[in-house]
Amino acid sequence: MSFDLVLFGGTGDLAWRKLMPALFQSFRHGTLPEGGRIIGVARDDLDDARYRALIQSRFDQVEGAKRPSAEEFARFAALLHFVRMDLSQPAAYARLAESLRQRDAATVVLYLATAPALFTTVCEQLAAAGLNTPRTRIVLEKPLGHDMASNRAINTTVLQTFSEGQVFRIDHYLGKPSVQNLFALRFGNALFEPVWRRELIANIQISIAEELGVEKRGAFYDSTGALRDMVQNHALQLLCAIGMEPPISAHADAIRDEKLKVLRSLKRWTPETLSQHVIRGQYAAGRAGGAAVPGYLGEPGVNPQSTTETFVALRTEIENWRWAGVPFYIRTGKRLAGRDAHIVVNFRPTPHPIFRTPLAGATNRMVINLQPRDGLTLHLLAEGQQSRTSPGAAQTLAPVQLDLDFDRRFGSERVGAYERLLLDVIAGRLNLFVRSDEQEEAWRWVEPILDAWHAGGDGLRPYPAGTWGPSAASAMIARDGSCWLEES
Amino acid sequence: MSFDLVLFGGTGDLAWRKLMPALFQSFRHGTLPEGGRIIGVARDDLDDARYRALIQSRFDQVEGAKRPSAEEFARFAALLHFVRMDLSQPAAYARLAESLRQRDAATVVLYLATAPALFTTVCEQLAAAGLNTPRTRIVLEKPLGHDMASNRAINTTVLQTFSEGQVFRIDHYLGKPSVQNLFALRFGNALFEPVWRRELIANIQISIAEELGVEKRGAFYDSTGALRDMVQNHALQLLCAIGMEPPISAHADAIRDEKLKVLRSLKRWTPETLSQHVIRGQYAAGRAGGAAVPGYLGEPGVNPQSTTETFVALRTEIENWRWAGVPFYIRTGKRLAGRDAHIVVNFRPTPHPIFRTPLAGATNRMVINLQPRDGLTLHLLAEGQQSRTSPGAAQTLAPVQLDLDFDRRFGSERVGAYERLLLDVIAGRLNLFVRSDEQEEAWRWVEPILDAWHAGGDGLRPYPAGTWGPSAASAMIARDGSCWLEES
Repeated sequence: MSFDLVLFGGTGDLAWRKLMPALFQSFRHGTLPEGGRIIGVARDDLDDARYRALIQSRFDQVEGAKRPSAEEFARFAALLHFVRMDLSQPAAYARLAESLRQRDAATVVLYLATAPALFTTVCEQLAAAGLNTPRTRIVLEKPLGHDMASNRAINTTVLQTFSEGQVFRIDHYLGKPSVQNLFALRFGNALFEPVWRRELIANIQISIAEELGVEKRGAFYDSTGALRDMVQNHALQLLCAIGMEPPISAHADAIRDEKLKVLRSLKRWTPETLSQHVIRGQYAAGRAGGAAVPGYLGEPGVNPQSTTETFVALRTEIENWRWAGVPFYIRTGKRLAGRDAHIVVNFRPTPHPIFRTPLAGATNRMVINLQPRDGLTLHLLAEGQQSRTSPGAAQTLAPVQLDLDFDRRFGSERVGAYERLLLDVIAGRLNLFVRSDEQEEAWRWVEPILDAWHAGGDGLRPYPAGTWGPSAASAMIARDGSCWLEES
Repeated sequence: MSFDLVLFGGTGDLAWRKLMPALFQSFRHGTLPEGGRIIGVARDDLDDARYRALIQSRFDQVEGAKRPSAEEFARFAALLHFVRMDLSQPAAYARLAESLRQRDAATVVLYLATAPALFTTVCEQLAAAGLNTPRTRIVLEKPLGHDMASNRAINTTVLQTFSEGQVFRIDHYLGKPSVQNLFALRFGNALFEPVWRRELIANIQISIAEELGVEKRGAFYDSTGALRDMVQNHALQLLCAIGMEPPISAHADAIRDEKLKVLRSLKRWTPETLSQHVIRGQYAAGRAGGAAVPGYLGEPGVNPQSTTETFVALRTEIENWRWAGVPFYIRTGKRLAGRDAHIVVNFRPTPHPIFRTPLAGATNRMVINLQPRDGLTLHLLAEGQQSRTSPGAAQTLAPVQLDLDFDRRFGSERVGAYERLLLDVIAGRLNLFVRSDEQEEAWRWVEPILDAWHAGGDGLRPYPAGTWGPSAASAMIARDGSCWLEES
């Protein structure tokens, strides 16, 4: 199946950091459909040869097994082409259209790895140039707006030119193997669904901790903050994946319908819950990787009086029959004590403890690791008298783990998130992409938090870089009798 | 807590193969209570010194880490004593009683590792010698009878002298770490109980396969057979452990009450089920361990016209709310294709398969390994597109295993079955011992099978040594749409 993949922003950061490596890995492993072209589009003064040289120079910085050999790169480079375009100039689109028409590929993917401010213009011009054919797919990268109104404006514009089924909105967390596994585990096994409910589950935690600060993205981040950057999209998508009802099929819209229902069931905010169940923080100077690091306000590009949050912890509920009353906690932040993204399902205690042992209060737990490793661990209790540690005592319980390390199970050369998502776009599979109504619903839930903060709201709490955030975040969950899982 | 452990049959096979090694391991690891005596009783012409020398000569045959050093054995040997006794002579008991009275230990354990034919005499004489004090515990080894009447006769005799709470009937399968773990897993975790029922479980298999033939026990085995030797006791105890309701406490009688309920709920036999759901076999010549081996009828001590079964496979049900309609399969035999004892819990398929994949019909399975290794494996399905094996395809499922290897988790120097049971006897814990009403109920269920066979019944099927038994056993389970798990 021939395809043309047009990368708007073909010389940009995303293209070379994520997209080109993913395309190359796919090419190397023979999973990229044959007969494809990868067409970089940018304003730079390049042609095919110089574009290939540019990409090669960047692959030269890659170390280890992921670096192509010269021969490998030469074969991959044959797919690469370049079209010089000023996206604000209508005439440029005509030339692109002409180039695509000559080739007449079965599938045309237009990947907008550009500033969102350009989306409206680009869509209008793509339509004017006749590029909105049924064989066209358009890929949109976040951020798609900074609130519900701007998100709706972008989606409205895009949907004037393309149908919903042509639009692939990327949330790369959905491409992570562990998240795909979560669907497989929940709906491919008979064992979990019966316990996946309020009767058995005490609470669920979604934690995305970063060790890095804002790095070179200070100016962008300062106008965004953790709530928009991580919660509105990634964390809520994870919450949907863990909380959704079984879909009627694996069809994209069947899955997205169920995720939408979760978002619509999220407990609405009140002034009280906004104050008690949402904690925002901002990192102060501290330590990271063994060295002293500056606070957020000292980062390049950041307004020295900024009140942008670099940390959010919140508590919500899914108000439906399955989950009524079960707390869902979300926590994310920069400059935390470790890089660790995971979902924790904390089960309730046994209804009637019959073993008298110090550990009888310990509960079952499932941990789905997303980062830095992919894996699943089931924490159980087993007979504890195995190792003669408690000689002569009555039956005791000891914690044991059932481990599923996906890297070990499936090899470390696994399909990365972007590789998976790019292959899905080319194949036209929408399952792992976000529908416009999901995005809008997520914004609808997030906006009252932004509004409350804008109105002053509960204060921004500083936390030293290298810690797990403001202690108020621990106090919030402690009030429910639980605590954050902070071991990787 | 001082104790005297009197081993009737102190120079016998069980004493030196199982009991002495277990006592030594316990001594070595400091879990045997201090201030104890181990008193071998037999007709042999020995004294303490010569008994110690005899035991030492046998430990000298042990290889590897389990062999005591000379210094270690010397310390252990100080616990060993010998009393020469002809068990049929009343006067001998008076001497034993005198020896025990002088010491006045807190606990006196009388371990009857003798022929069951002696039980009645021994119990009567123990009573006559005043050895049935409240501080006395009596340990009985199988076989406790060869049918319900003889079992009841033994228990009646014993219970005329000792109360039920003093009687420790050994079923060493209950001492296996995996079986204790089964209790811990089922009742120490919130996760399993909700799925441990007919709605989720398709069937359960209990398999105890031996690679060995009858070895030197031909004469004994020929009067016993697989049903009495393995099914009436071990297999039914495993069935109770897997099928019982949660007990109200970990107290011995709370557990034994629940096991008894399972035995009482076993589906009663009809002529039809006796014919269709019980398969008996006898091994013919074949191969084992790479060498040709004789058939059962050629084994030393076996009647050349014997119709004793060396293999049984059967199907039953537990007729209660939890298990109604769920088949429980039991299979055991000698000279099978491998040494492998395990319990398999086969879960039902997902109620509504949403992943289109060749494996969608695969189901979840929990395997509890008892032999040769102890462990637990949970067979699940996970996302299968991890390893680029199915490029470009829609979501597929691949089998994965969550493993809990108890040897690895708790170290290979684990408490063995006899060691655990001996410590429990000394400590007075009855949880892992069988109550008389359990035994009787098991015999009540087994007897109709024996009766049917005695009356001719369904024929004895030969199977070549080194196979998994008669094909009728596979046909029986295949009629339910299932099959035996035959991978270790």
